Amino acid sequence: MKVVVLGTGRMGEGIARLLLEKPGIALAGVYGRRPRPGITDAGDAVGLAGARGTPFDNDLAALLDRARPQVAIQATCSRLEDAMGEIRILVDAGLDVISIAEELAYPACRSPDAARELDALAGRRRVTVLGTGINPGFVLDLLVIALTGVCQRVDRITATRVNDLSPYGPTVLESQGVGLSPDAFAAGVAAGAVVGHRGFPESMAMIAGALGWRLSRIEQRREPVVARVRRETPFVTVDPGRVAGCRHTAVGYVEDVPRIELVHPQQVCPEIEGVETGDEIAIAGEPDVRFAGRPEIPGGTGTAALAVNMIPRVVAAAPGLVSMADLPVPAAIMGDVRHLLAGRRGEVVA
Amino acid sequence: MKVVVLGTGRMGEGIARLLLEKPGIALAGVYGRRPRPGITDAGDAVGLAGARGTPFDNDLAALLDRARPQVAIQATCSRLEDAMGEIRILVDAGLDVISIAEELAYPACRSPDAARELDALAGRRRVTVLGTGINPGFVLDLLVIALTGVCQRVDRITATRVNDLSPYGPTVLESQGVGLSPDAFAAGVAAGAVVGHRGFPESMAMIAGALGWRLSRIEQRREPVVARVRRETPFVTVDPGRVAGCRHTAVGYVEDVPRIELVHPQQVCPEIEGVETGDEIAIAGEPDVRFAGRPEIPGGTGTAALAVNMIPRVVAAAPGLVSMADLPVPAAIMGDVRHLLAGRRGEVVA
Repeated sequence: MKVVVLGTGRMGEGIARLLLEKPGIALAGVYGRRPRPGITDAGDAVGLAGARGTPFDNDLAALLDRARPQVAIQATCSRLEDAMGEIRILVDAGLDVISIAEELAYPACRSPDAARELDALAGRRRVTVLGTGINPGFVLDLLVIALTGVCQRVDRITATRVNDLSPYGPTVLESQGVGLSPDAFAAGVAAGAVVGHRGFPESMAMIAGALGWRLSRIEQRREPVVARVRRETPFVTVDPGRVAGCRHTAVGYVEDVPRIELVHPQQVCPEIEGVETGDEIAIAGEPDVRFAGRPEIPGGTGTAALAVNMIPRVVAAAPGLVSMADLPVPAAIMGDVRHLLAGRRGEVVA
Repeated sequence: MKVVVLGTGRMGEGIARLLLEKPGIALAGVYGRRPRPGITDAGDAVGLAGARGTPFDNDLAALLDRARPQVAIQATCSRLEDAMGEIRILVDAGLDVISIAEELAYPACRSPDAARELDALAGRRRVTVLGTGINPGFVLDLLVIALTGVCQRVDRITATRVNDLSPYGPTVLESQGVGLSPDAFAAGVAAGAVVGHRGFPESMAMIAGALGWRLSRIEQRREPVVARVRRETPFVTVDPGRVAGCRHTAVGYVEDVPRIELVHPQQVCPEIEGVETGDEIAIAGEPDVRFAGRPEIPGGTGTAALAVNMIPRVVAAAPGLVSMADLPVPAAIMGDVRHLLAGRRGEVVA
């Protein structure tokens, strides 16, 4: 099973490293958007000795020509618009595509035209395109949907992910307004510079679509988490009264009744003010269901794992644009992926 | 979408009641194993006013002839051997089948020949056969598998379900040895009268199959939960020193390394000795993952919900014998099931 990785950032490198560890999977090549003069070896491009001898290219078509892969994992961007060019090339070349771009988790939500185009294109080329990741893609949508499966009736869903931004660098911190004054934060939200979490509409639409709810509107709020004590990371110092993070929430309405609430406060050093990180899903209905995990499932590690673990699911799936709710659940790949794919459903293992 | 229910016990009645509530689903008939002289109406057979006018029969073929359903839900038994006769008739009649028989959750594990026969039969008739339920089928297997999906590596899985047997009547209590002396409990285990939980091998095999582990052996232990204080339910009184329940555990080995541990102590009045009920999944690996819910997802309500909520998944599935790990996750049906089935993957909902 030959797989190429698009992206040479932290995520691309993490995915490439994981692919190298999995029996039955070969890292066939790495693509980077930026030209890297003199670099033609993936081992140099992503700094992995195990990738040495594998081609690197910033010309995607040329890389595919050389690598002849069956699957591509895209880790180059967050937005659908930005992802489409590469995906078109991959699908045209007959590859199954797994993207960790947040807007690919459920593109029909914000970009129905592009979603239809992608679905039709993938259908014609008999390949599957999937968006995945920890969030969107798992904690605040797929896991929520699965837990509603034990419910006879669902009245309201609240899913919360409290995480720690301390390991992250300037780009992420700026997108959450970390270090700003509360006024500058408000101005940043208004101007679109303080983005908060990308993926709430996608998660909402995935949940609603799976349950058969028709969302009438989604309300999002981005509020500052104001530090009361000094918080410090290698990348930022937040004095009391300044912004330590962004508390981003979204409420989805079905016929004007709030049915889905997603809560995702992201901040540096939450523990310093007694905030415990974690994931929590609470479903009010028949029966009530509440599941929680502490600390939160780590975003970077988990997203790389999901992208790789979904390979056998995407290879076995029917053609088209799909979401995590359309495929069997992911599973850690602990055996040879070729055996997993050859395994008949219901086969004897013991 | 016309659905028949097999079984007139507590589960059959609960499933029939839920089917009546779901738009786009019609309860088309109820089958009971025991003849009920003079009763031909499902409303009388299961005591549901909403089912009045729907046929009841203890001749399955005759019921199918009259009801002309597309899907059957089987709630008549626990064991595969006992379930096969009815399933053969249903599959022959061209119905998709959802069974809550514990051994149907992953029949290939203990009955590979029957599993192959069923898979071939379902394939020939172009229908799908699925086993589901809270346990096996969800908490100690599907949910575990889904959570491993965020892992780059899994070293060991421990999944625990602590529940309360207080609502249950004599049949269930006897199967867990409730009320016995510890000596009589040990004799009951040896004689096969104290069964403990049905479904550990199925859950183990489902997990191992999904991850690509090959189980070399499964060790099961049934130990008495001995009461230290008096425990009382409407059905039983347990004096100190007597057995309040069965602590059933199973360990699955991969190449002689214990990899999967499932723990399911079932007892009456656990709270009286400070035992909190709940479900908990702990995965040691990269990363570690821990998710827990308290109290436990209720078994009866949850199993009825899963059986009904899997209808659109089974109708859309490829033919054959499948497990919960082969299909998209269940979701509570909160809209018209016909719309859910007509919904294209990735369709706009908001």
